[in-house]
Amino acid sequence: MGKGNAKKAVVLLSGGLDSATTAAIARAEGFELYALTLDYGQRHSREIESAKAVAASLGVKEHIVLRLDLRKIARSALTGGSDVPLDRTESEMSSEIPPTYVPARNTVLLSLALAYAETVGAEDIFIGVSQIDYSGYPDCRSEFIEAFERLANLAAKAAVEGTAEYRIRAPLVNSGKADAIRRGIELGLDYSLTWSCYLGGEKACGRCDSCRLRLAAFARAGVQDPLEYR
Amino acid sequence: MGKGNAKKAVVLLSGGLDSATTAAIARAEGFELYALTLDYGQRHSREIESAKAVAASLGVKEHIVLRLDLRKIARSALTGGSDVPLDRTESEMSSEIPPTYVPARNTVLLSLALAYAETVGAEDIFIGVSQIDYSGYPDCRSEFIEAFERLANLAAKAAVEGTAEYRIRAPLVNSGKADAIRRGIELGLDYSLTWSCYLGGEKACGRCDSCRLRLAAFARAGVQDPLEYR
Repeated sequence: MGKGNAKKAVVLLSGGLDSATTAAIARAEGFELYALTLDYGQRHSREIESAKAVAASLGVKEHIVLRLDLRKIARSALTGGSDVPLDRTESEMSSEIPPTYVPARNTVLLSLALAYAETVGAEDIFIGVSQIDYSGYPDCRSEFIEAFERLANLAAKAAVEGTAEYRIRAPLVNSGKADAIRRGIELGLDYSLTWSCYLGGEKACGRCDSCRLRLAAFARAGVQDPLEYR
Repeated sequence: MGKGNAKKAVVLLSGGLDSATTAAIARAEGFELYALTLDYGQRHSREIESAKAVAASLGVKEHIVLRLDLRKIARSALTGGSDVPLDRTESEMSSEIPPTYVPARNTVLLSLALAYAETVGAEDIFIGVSQIDYSGYPDCRSEFIEAFERLANLAAKAAVEGTAEYRIRAPLVNSGKADAIRRGIELGLDYSLTWSCYLGGEKACGRCDSCRLRLAAFARAGVQDPLEYR
């Protein structure tokens, strides 16, 4: 597909493993990428730096980092409202909606992606959710993604005028993290650029839920995690 | 209803006439109000000041003004991307989706309101849309509001756990602006605190689409607009 007429897609990029893999899949499908990262008052800026590195490595057309202080309205361990859980067992992690759940996060992310898609003329919006690994998060399920797609096609001017049809693309929704890693490796994605740890710093902690899930997934995929751990 | 057990509602408050009327209706229903205003890079801050004045006059429990620079992702005459239309005829105003349409604005607003509602434990979210006056805006229609309500009940932790059921309340959706004004006056709302003009300044311009619609509505309601015009 020539550069001039490549189809555009908006990709939500957090700097984490799933969104980076999703972006690599979108690029492999031939889309010209418009990446959107939300700086929502995370505990540290390491994730934003990772998002920038991933975006650059994938040759995105534009990368917008949007500041929105979600801490004001949505309290959660991830936005600094309470403690990040460390050293939890796998059964504790999977038994309930995690303390790192951010209220309505994917609804907010997708609504911003829709605004951006409408502005740049993209019809495909990619998000890296998985209902396998994140079964505790209601807004990671297929049902939610489908409901948002219906909403988008009622909300946006171009859809109502019949000149666009929005598709919410969640290529990892039925994949576990190990599968995602295998796909990313095939596509040449450099996972040393991604960041999963809930804490900041030079090296990942290896102890928070997110590090533990990441390490377990790399082990299952039979691949060495290129990230440095403390 | 006693103060201690009043039901909570989140109200989206822009500083304009419709959202102020909606907030007054919510208060009259006995809700304890949590007001949310988005400072999205409007051309001027007059609207935000009006939202604060309206919130104070209604005795809200909390008022959060959230900064989000929508101009980065959603170009529109309202966010400063192009000229505000002046001196348009009524038929020009009603014939098409207006240049002041902000992509996905109500989707963004409702998703933030949902995050806030989940955090404070509110189940009712009030928004001042009208499909009568704003037929050109797809995200002001009942269909859109209903689709968002379905989405909210799939997205939010409390809804999925069965401990909450979200309702998106748009009490003006089938009212014209003149009806809204009559209801607000009955409820004792002080319209001199509201602001509709697309331009800033001490006095409203009286010439932009928004001023013209407001003036026409007050005339139809048979009430004097208490706002000063140039």
